[in-house]
Amino acid sequence: MSLIVQKFGGTSVGSIERIEQVADKVSRFRAEGHDVVVVVSAMSGETNRLIALAHQIQDRPVPREMDVLVSTGEQVTTALLSMALNKRGVKAKSYNGSQVRILTDDAHTKARIRDIDDERLHADLDKGYVVVVAGFQGVDEHGNITTLGRGGSDTTAVALAAALKADECQIYTDVDGVYTTDPRMVDGARRLDRITFEEMLEMASMGSKVLQIRAVEFAGKYNVPLRVLHSFEEGPGTLIALEDSSQMETPTIAGIAFNRDEAKLTVVGVPDMPGIAHRILGPIGEANIEVDVIVQNVEHDNTTDFTFTVSRGDLARAEEVLKKVAEDINAEEVRSDNKIAKVSIVGVGMRSHAGVASQAFAALAEVGINIQMITTSEIKISVIIEEKFLELAVRSLHSSFGLSKEPQNESPA
Amino acid sequence: MSLIVQKFGGTSVGSIERIEQVADKVSRFRAEGHDVVVVVSAMSGETNRLIALAHQIQDRPVPREMDVLVSTGEQVTTALLSMALNKRGVKAKSYNGSQVRILTDDAHTKARIRDIDDERLHADLDKGYVVVVAGFQGVDEHGNITTLGRGGSDTTAVALAAALKADECQIYTDVDGVYTTDPRMVDGARRLDRITFEEMLEMASMGSKVLQIRAVEFAGKYNVPLRVLHSFEEGPGTLIALEDSSQMETPTIAGIAFNRDEAKLTVVGVPDMPGIAHRILGPIGEANIEVDVIVQNVEHDNTTDFTFTVSRGDLARAEEVLKKVAEDINAEEVRSDNKIAKVSIVGVGMRSHAGVASQAFAALAEVGINIQMITTSEIKISVIIEEKFLELAVRSLHSSFGLSKEPQNESPA
Repeated sequence: MSLIVQKFGGTSVGSIERIEQVADKVSRFRAEGHDVVVVVSAMSGETNRLIALAHQIQDRPVPREMDVLVSTGEQVTTALLSMALNKRGVKAKSYNGSQVRILTDDAHTKARIRDIDDERLHADLDKGYVVVVAGFQGVDEHGNITTLGRGGSDTTAVALAAALKADECQIYTDVDGVYTTDPRMVDGARRLDRITFEEMLEMASMGSKVLQIRAVEFAGKYNVPLRVLHSFEEGPGTLIALEDSSQMETPTIAGIAFNRDEAKLTVVGVPDMPGIAHRILGPIGEANIEVDVIVQNVEHDNTTDFTFTVSRGDLARAEEVLKKVAEDINAEEVRSDNKIAKVSIVGVGMRSHAGVASQAFAALAEVGINIQMITTSEIKISVIIEEKFLELAVRSLHSSFGLSKEPQNESPA
Repeated sequence: MSLIVQKFGGTSVGSIERIEQVADKVSRFRAEGHDVVVVVSAMSGETNRLIALAHQIQDRPVPREMDVLVSTGEQVTTALLSMALNKRGVKAKSYNGSQVRILTDDAHTKARIRDIDDERLHADLDKGYVVVVAGFQGVDEHGNITTLGRGGSDTTAVALAAALKADECQIYTDVDGVYTTDPRMVDGARRLDRITFEEMLEMASMGSKVLQIRAVEFAGKYNVPLRVLHSFEEGPGTLIALEDSSQMETPTIAGIAFNRDEAKLTVVGVPDMPGIAHRILGPIGEANIEVDVIVQNVEHDNTTDFTFTVSRGDLARAEEVLKKVAEDINAEEVRSDNKIAKVSIVGVGMRSHAGVASQAFAALAEVGINIQMITTSEIKISVIIEEKFLELAVRSLHSSFGLSKEPQNESPA
């Protein structure tokens, strides 16, 4: 018997029928003797319905009231799921963020969790209740309702698992696990039985949208074993946890991630002097544009080229900001390109295995793909290439690193 | 400058357009320098939508979860109205029942208010905020969400007005005040400028559905001046308050109320002995059937007839219960009739004016109406008559007591 936190997203609770299916699943875990805490999102469509109501009144509604409004969505789901569990003879009790007490800061619509009071939940678990908690929301120290921002329900689940010292945090989704790469692109893509927090972070940030980055960070920080599972299909899913020290040899590479939503900006002929990176990226940050890859090469002739990538939707705005900056710093010109994509090779095994980079570059060269930019981290190598070569690059790398092989077996908690 | 509590029901906030209209109205009061607390119901249709979701899961959902579910309806309205006020440059803040802290007992779906914490509201009012409170809901001492039952928003408004020592509690509805009788039945029916709590109670319980009985009781108990007004038309409405001692002479009669939803049951030949009323009505109460008028006349030949009325929908069930009771107590038989109606003459002036009853009976006799039952209280005379004579009876009494005359003028706070 163990304590499990299970999180079901909006699609998994999108109708009464689906809520009943979730209740069936939760009941089975309860019947096996586990203590269960369930975290739910709003029924799919509900949050957007509420936001649309607000936008009929104001383009930018007061954030405090926005939180009061949208937090009702999850509360509705908690009540309905508790009813469905009670109907099955499973004692269940709903909690909203304020009732648990999920204490957050007061940054409405994007609050951060500060503390979770586990007393009431533990008391109810001890009495045999399944506890159903509204995801995505909390309360500030003055009792105002806050929300954690889009995808915050994953974060709620992980934070609860950490606070309650749960044995596992299960995130139910519309996929049956984390894959070596997108199965729609590569036939041989396979589900990973296990992946480390760091690898998952790199995969997630690279466009593998299974989990919110924030939730993975949180889970890694508090060492909460996370498992990604399919809501309505049986299967072991993928366990996201610390490196498995019982395995003699870690596979070198976990997977190949990629992201099409990239556009590249280069400031050419930048005078090479201290503080120049800040003078370029400062105004971009102030314009609320998120920057992804940044590359600056060594200077020659006292100037350098400064390149970074942004989301395609931000390209026009970023270019505008940058043209002004280029003038201010006496740079030559600003070039942009939105026909690019990013491919990343991710794996903790990379740390101890030399030659991963060269193997990757060789694989790309073999199929004639030119690399525009390279960045590396401890467990990741990313390359920016022409978008039209994306599929070819992913398939070549997936095959070059032998990712289609069958993994060792492993079963869920 | 005064402190006003304003309550807007589901129809008054039934769409974004109407919420904007309510915001206009509240803003005007604020601009006049009043402190304003607004109590709102769920947008019309929303509570039923939520209940329908629950009923897809269970016929009788867990009451605790039912409260969690439906309480979201009012919360949505508070957020939207606060946004609409903020848009008009009026500082506003939403509160749900738990945030205010409207402390209730733990009788889910029909909780009673025990205490209201006025500290946070007063602090916000002092800072110039309009405070928007979710009606119909509270929280028990363990932090569980409770609801006050249908129409509970009126009770919330009155309770807040009492706790905050408000100068007036305004209930906005789809009528422009309380009438001497139903204007759809009597052309000469006129809006009352003023009526006492007791009179309003009698009018309300007689089918005049402008206000919840419970809210009127509450207002009377704490002497909160209540004003019934139309949500979207201008006008002084009707003030419900203590008797106006400044007026030399109180009009004898406030109005004529009536109720068609009555059915009559008579247990004939009941042995006249102590405890018999309890033996008859006990089982009716246990079956959750509400009894309205009860009449027992003096005995003769050691037996008596015991008559009472119930809602028509309860007649069949009541008759079934009663047949068993009649056997147990050796009564002769049970008779029933659902073609009856009740007409009541209401007015505090009755206390000091002899002859109201005889004038009423004379008016009915004059048009040939036979009276089946009579009950009286300090400020009310009710008669049960054949339903087909209802309109005639109401018109005759309205005219006999001169209720179509123009009243003295009075204006709102």
